[in-house]
Amino acid sequence: MSKTTSIRFKDTQIELAHGAGGKASRRLIEGLIAPILGNPALNDAALLSLDTSSLAFTADSFVVRPLRFPGGSIGELAVNGTVNDLAVSGARPLALLSSLILEAGLAVETLQAELEAMQAAAQRAGVAVLGGDTKVVEHGQADGLYISTSGIGRVDSRLALSARAVRPGDQILLSGPIGDHGITVLLARGELDLEADLKSDTRSVWPLVEALIEAAAPGLRWMRDPTRGGVATALNELARETRLAFRLDEEAIPVREAVRGACEILGLDPLHIANEGQFIAIVASEFAEVALEAVRRSPGGQEAVLVGEVLEKPGGVVYTTNGYGSSRVVDMLVGDPLPRIC
Amino acid sequence: MSKTTSIRFKDTQIELAHGAGGKASRRLIEGLIAPILGNPALNDAALLSLDTSSLAFTADSFVVRPLRFPGGSIGELAVNGTVNDLAVSGARPLALLSSLILEAGLAVETLQAELEAMQAAAQRAGVAVLGGDTKVVEHGQADGLYISTSGIGRVDSRLALSARAVRPGDQILLSGPIGDHGITVLLARGELDLEADLKSDTRSVWPLVEALIEAAAPGLRWMRDPTRGGVATALNELARETRLAFRLDEEAIPVREAVRGACEILGLDPLHIANEGQFIAIVASEFAEVALEAVRRSPGGQEAVLVGEVLEKPGGVVYTTNGYGSSRVVDMLVGDPLPRIC
Repeated sequence: MSKTTSIRFKDTQIELAHGAGGKASRRLIEGLIAPILGNPALNDAALLSLDTSSLAFTADSFVVRPLRFPGGSIGELAVNGTVNDLAVSGARPLALLSSLILEAGLAVETLQAELEAMQAAAQRAGVAVLGGDTKVVEHGQADGLYISTSGIGRVDSRLALSARAVRPGDQILLSGPIGDHGITVLLARGELDLEADLKSDTRSVWPLVEALIEAAAPGLRWMRDPTRGGVATALNELARETRLAFRLDEEAIPVREAVRGACEILGLDPLHIANEGQFIAIVASEFAEVALEAVRRSPGGQEAVLVGEVLEKPGGVVYTTNGYGSSRVVDMLVGDPLPRIC
Repeated sequence: MSKTTSIRFKDTQIELAHGAGGKASRRLIEGLIAPILGNPALNDAALLSLDTSSLAFTADSFVVRPLRFPGGSIGELAVNGTVNDLAVSGARPLALLSSLILEAGLAVETLQAELEAMQAAAQRAGVAVLGGDTKVVEHGQADGLYISTSGIGRVDSRLALSARAVRPGDQILLSGPIGDHGITVLLARGELDLEADLKSDTRSVWPLVEALIEAAAPGLRWMRDPTRGGVATALNELARETRLAFRLDEEAIPVREAVRGACEILGLDPLHIANEGQFIAIVASEFAEVALEAVRRSPGGQEAVLVGEVLEKPGGVVYTTNGYGSSRVVDMLVGDPLPRIC
């Protein structure tokens, strides 16, 4: 990203919204963190050249509350989230490390369950957790358990993924239904009088990405896993960087009934809800169909769809259109309707 | 490490001692974490082969309290600690990533100071923080700020560091005075009625290690930065692994008066106190003098000393001897006299 110097961070205190992945997060990262550390406000993974290989290197912390929810847990997220950051960088995961921050008083049973969840997720993703670090903080801190995971992967040499590669006419591929993770975690807290038959989508997307690369590497422009801030935030960041327009076909975006219903009741937009097992790919139009077929043929990829296209104008904007001819601008997430979602 | 299956972790609840780096930590890691994750109870860095290079990959979390103390701060530790884990693996640091867990309500001023400390430390260590992740948790958690850092480095191809390489007759090189960091942080909490003119030793040890490698690579057997649990714990782990004896010359071990005084009052052994800018190297005896000279000639290495030797018996034991002919067995750290030291 290039335009980091124009933002100034004027807040005097950190708020939950700064961690929500939306506008406040971008201001914190681009207005304070990236300028001081002198780095480019990284999204998924840093790329490094080593000998003849290109290496992807990524790190994330996981603070989800509650620790366990339908379809997953913090341990699974900590593996899959890092694997997916590598995957959307076009990198086959090679190795993970995991640092645990444990609360004094944590039941060993709970820790054991999360270690087992991590190991199972790592095995499913075909990667090893090689080690890490363990710290313990006083009772009342760390909410049981925080996990920080880092990963390295080898970037497929056929790819040159970059926002700069995105062109008008490119198609927007989405790997499956959105919002499952965020709404599941929100409901799992039991603070709302809502129930739904729903589970987190947490999984490794590497098998889907690998199929996509095999089928359509020359046409793959850019990928992202739309976690905090959802599809809307991921595409808005891309729109801002490319100064292109991203049109989504409202009726094509897959959203489960339970997610749609919860969002309506809560006044949320499914496009802002976090996903943990989906990705967006921008694909050259001539590769769009073969790319879609490749993902759909892969286990777990049956619900993939082409949800829209890249246009030249209006520059920097994400919007939806529907069959009735109406359109709606979709902004980044503002505020934090869903704290501690991952 | 090979003997991980013999330990069983029977505690039902996590305690602060499990994070102190001593015996309880080893039980947690070797009895629970490593067996489930199927990894070898890693100490410093994982080693990976990539093309013709050997890569070191390491991760640590930092939860030190207070955030700032004489001579350093959490931001500096988070960079130097990771750089040093790479350095003692014989790897030149290539890149760091840093994940922040922030407490809602944290003053931005405090965050900014730590980001600046990280950047300054990274610059001094000649490495870049390429990016990372930012999460925010509710007020009352995370004690302001936790930092998880991961790093990758390229292992010097002249080295084959390993506990298995250690031989009777090898010499034990220590880079400088011990205990400064742990005692400084302990006193900085202001909970004890003690004052001392002391500061943390936090720094990158890579320049010293690099000089050592240039001078004595063929004679370098093993290195470790003795952080939590101190020199005693690091050498006990090596003793257990090699089944050799490690004799330390009590009078040769450099300990500042302030550290010695505080330890006497508190009933602590300086050999158990954490260091953040020192390392231990086991060096073949024929390289010991040239190794020592190389470290001493490097800026900050003037206080390096040869503190002891490796013997065949008594197997698995670390002990000190002094000029009066008495000797004392030095065990690993037990319990946690100094929680949240890094």
